[in-house]
Amino acid sequence: MNPLSHTLSVRVNLPNWIGDFEGSLNEIFPTIESRMALAIKLADENVSRESGGPFGAAVFDSDTGELVSLGVNRVVESGYSISHAEILALSFAQNILKTHDLSKSLRPNLQLVTSVEPCSMCLGAIPWSGVKSVVCGARTSDAEKVGFDEGPKLDSWPEELEKRGITVFRDIEREAATKPLQNYLRNGGAIYNGGGK
Amino acid sequence: MNPLSHTLSVRVNLPNWIGDFEGSLNEIFPTIESRMALAIKLADENVSRESGGPFGAAVFDSDTGELVSLGVNRVVESGYSISHAEILALSFAQNILKTHDLSKSLRPNLQLVTSVEPCSMCLGAIPWSGVKSVVCGARTSDAEKVGFDEGPKLDSWPEELEKRGITVFRDIEREAATKPLQNYLRNGGAIYNGGGK
Repeated sequence: MNPLSHTLSVRVNLPNWIGDFEGSLNEIFPTIESRMALAIKLADENVSRESGGPFGAAVFDSDTGELVSLGVNRVVESGYSISHAEILALSFAQNILKTHDLSKSLRPNLQLVTSVEPCSMCLGAIPWSGVKSVVCGARTSDAEKVGFDEGPKLDSWPEELEKRGITVFRDIEREAATKPLQNYLRNGGAIYNGGGK
Repeated sequence: MNPLSHTLSVRVNLPNWIGDFEGSLNEIFPTIESRMALAIKLADENVSRESGGPFGAAVFDSDTGELVSLGVNRVVESGYSISHAEILALSFAQNILKTHDLSKSLRPNLQLVTSVEPCSMCLGAIPWSGVKSVVCGARTSDAEKVGFDEGPKLDSWPEELEKRGITVFRDIEREAATKPLQNYLRNGGAIYNGGGK
């Protein structure tokens, strides 16, 4: 690519097994626990198929319980450090709903569900995306135990999101959500913090 | 796009006028001030051409002073809330150098130069990108004065980056860097914080 190319095309391929989740598009996910179960399944699959880091995320319509989009960690595979599960799920949703501000879309009450609390980048991305709520599984500290740096975050990050009109649910199926992290470590998965660390 | 499409293609078109900067690829930018002047010029152009928000960024090779990649804010135009100048410049650099961790690339000493201090998302993206230093022009407070929410950030964010081996330079040409923000406000440019705000 020419460094001054007019078009930056960040192409991120989701793994082929993502097709197995097609049935989920016709399901209704009535509770945050059922939505979290899907995010954890995505993280689990990503680890067992060795297709990326131990993180899964999905965007749901809170009004209907429908699945809108999903993402798994693809940093190493895509060659882009922004390819976290949450960034991909949010960007997919914006692509599908054709707006940078999901709160103004045809589905104005969207919910990001993520198997692990967002890192500093994804946390920062949430208010700009226009989602109305965030559901988190494992804690930041669970990811840090495995060796991931989650970046510079205020301890009061849930309150900071709430201030911006975004409801935060934590510790939803935390134990189940921590398992993909542990499996990843056991498999010897790459810890790909930036700066060669 | 199918919600379970295997390929997320975040396509962001830079404005056509970006071609005017082609000559910069053959220039050497020996100082951080000369690099900042380019980032400010990008922000300036983006405002006067009404092609996006009042933010410009570029990645330079600290060892040689060469320009590697550049970005301007394209949130509204691209339909993706991640399309901040810094995210685009970093992703372009990763595309060009073919790695998610620029510290392991053929140009291991890269520097992100941004006309305004990074928002919470871009701040979080910096450690994962593999750049070794960040040069900032206008302050977070200068952007906030215009109406932009810069997100939940630790006051100690420069120290947090330094801890991760990333040198931070602040207030470089701050006065000149603040002008695009003020011009944007004067022009009635869209303040596109998420959540309909």
